[in-house]
Amino acid sequence: MNVVGDSDLPIGVFDSGVGGLTVLNAIREKLPNENLVYLGDTARVPYGTKSAVSVTRYAEQAAKALIERKIKLLVIACNTASAVAVEPLQKLYPQIKVMGVVGPGADASCQATKNKHIGVIATESTVSNQAYQNAILERRSDVSVVAYPCSLFVALAEEGWHEGALVQQIVDKCLEPLKAENGSLIDTLVLGCTHFPALKKVISEVMGEDVALVDSAATTAHAVENGLKESGLLNKSISPGNVEFLVTDGPERFVRVAKHFFKDEISMAEIQQIDIQHFGNAP
Amino acid sequence: MNVVGDSDLPIGVFDSGVGGLTVLNAIREKLPNENLVYLGDTARVPYGTKSAVSVTRYAEQAAKALIERKIKLLVIACNTASAVAVEPLQKLYPQIKVMGVVGPGADASCQATKNKHIGVIATESTVSNQAYQNAILERRSDVSVVAYPCSLFVALAEEGWHEGALVQQIVDKCLEPLKAENGSLIDTLVLGCTHFPALKKVISEVMGEDVALVDSAATTAHAVENGLKESGLLNKSISPGNVEFLVTDGPERFVRVAKHFFKDEISMAEIQQIDIQHFGNAP
Repeated sequence: MNVVGDSDLPIGVFDSGVGGLTVLNAIREKLPNENLVYLGDTARVPYGTKSAVSVTRYAEQAAKALIERKIKLLVIACNTASAVAVEPLQKLYPQIKVMGVVGPGADASCQATKNKHIGVIATESTVSNQAYQNAILERRSDVSVVAYPCSLFVALAEEGWHEGALVQQIVDKCLEPLKAENGSLIDTLVLGCTHFPALKKVISEVMGEDVALVDSAATTAHAVENGLKESGLLNKSISPGNVEFLVTDGPERFVRVAKHFFKDEISMAEIQQIDIQHFGNAP
Repeated sequence: MNVVGDSDLPIGVFDSGVGGLTVLNAIREKLPNENLVYLGDTARVPYGTKSAVSVTRYAEQAAKALIERKIKLLVIACNTASAVAVEPLQKLYPQIKVMGVVGPGADASCQATKNKHIGVIATESTVSNQAYQNAILERRSDVSVVAYPCSLFVALAEEGWHEGALVQQIVDKCLEPLKAENGSLIDTLVLGCTHFPALKKVISEVMGEDVALVDSAATTAHAVENGLKESGLLNKSISPGNVEFLVTDGPERFVRVAKHFFKDEISMAEIQQIDIQHFGNAP
């Protein structure tokens, strides 16, 4: 498959479910004329509690589905999948650029920190495979990184529990161990899961206003723009791009929960359900 | 396949993940000499936010995996899967008895209520397909049933947030809509998800001591015993039965989270990982 030169092709954006819609928002804002196709693996969501082997396999199946439909660039919007699957997918599909959100998030945190102490909150899986820790230390060996899993935030975000006194108490309790583990030193906190920006206001209140919160969505959109520029694939069209939605489970819940993550309303008619579980992993 | 008459064969117990271990506990307690094989579909957990079509398909794949290994009876320990898959699986596999937890839970609640007002809390999927509501009204047309989803309880149970003032506040907020919707009348509340018994103490404090909590694990174990008796398949051995564990994702998280649900320690060596996602649905 050779897609080089076809700037009209969509950018493929892959996520475990709805959280990646925050990345889709940022890409649309930055590059409104690009066509986009979003794939949410809602039949197997969440990835954050699954093993690296399973997540890598799921990412390979999702990439295959998107690349078969022809895309010009692949964005892994899910932090957990970005943490393990960018390299394997880039090897499988050398003809298109594969980008994750961990690299851009690490970049942003390295730029944001002044006192050289960075914190990361993410899913169990992302924290335990040290993806952010390694990515940050590769960029700046002079910083310290402390990371902690906050799995409960995913459920809070999806249930629409985004603010208020009770949510603040929950967030406070979840972040206690991070603070205890040198987290009180940090001046920068990476929101290393696409769900966490929904709780940004409360996380900021709990961490204090001196701690900068890094959400990789905007930085990823910037990296996508650069990636397209470098390969001469920016869409030169002056009309707004199309957005297509693919899901692996029924669209009902996707439509309902998407409201917490996506700026525009998505209608059932815009969504197509596909099956990717039977895919082998080879291209 | 004909397994009739082979009482040494294990009972197959299928769940979306770890929650069904509460049902396994109850079966082991009631029938200590039975061999048991437990399958947790940890690669796709949770089921409670997935569509009925996907959950039915997953249950068919899990049943196929267990039945290929030869079992004498199949228990669907997951409420969400029980709600949709008992009938399709019984049709696919007429040679063995297929049992869910919804029927036994409905039985228990119909026996427990005195004032004829029953409440049900469960996952989104179980509530929206009206499984408990229908099962209860089939048994007693003279009762009223009110059901409400409490998806957040799954995350709390898995994270080990089982008691304390903060958990009580969360549970209180989750149950508010149930109480508002005639739930204040109920004298019986079905814990319609295997995760919820982990929060039993707090749920009881919030609902008040006059509300009986129904956990279908014990009733299901009783129904399993009856099912085996009826078909002459009770294991007559006097030595304790074996328990075998199968999972569809890596065993690490299963071992860790199982502590909140299973009475005994499970070691990594006892667990085998299998792949069921590639299975077609036919027997």
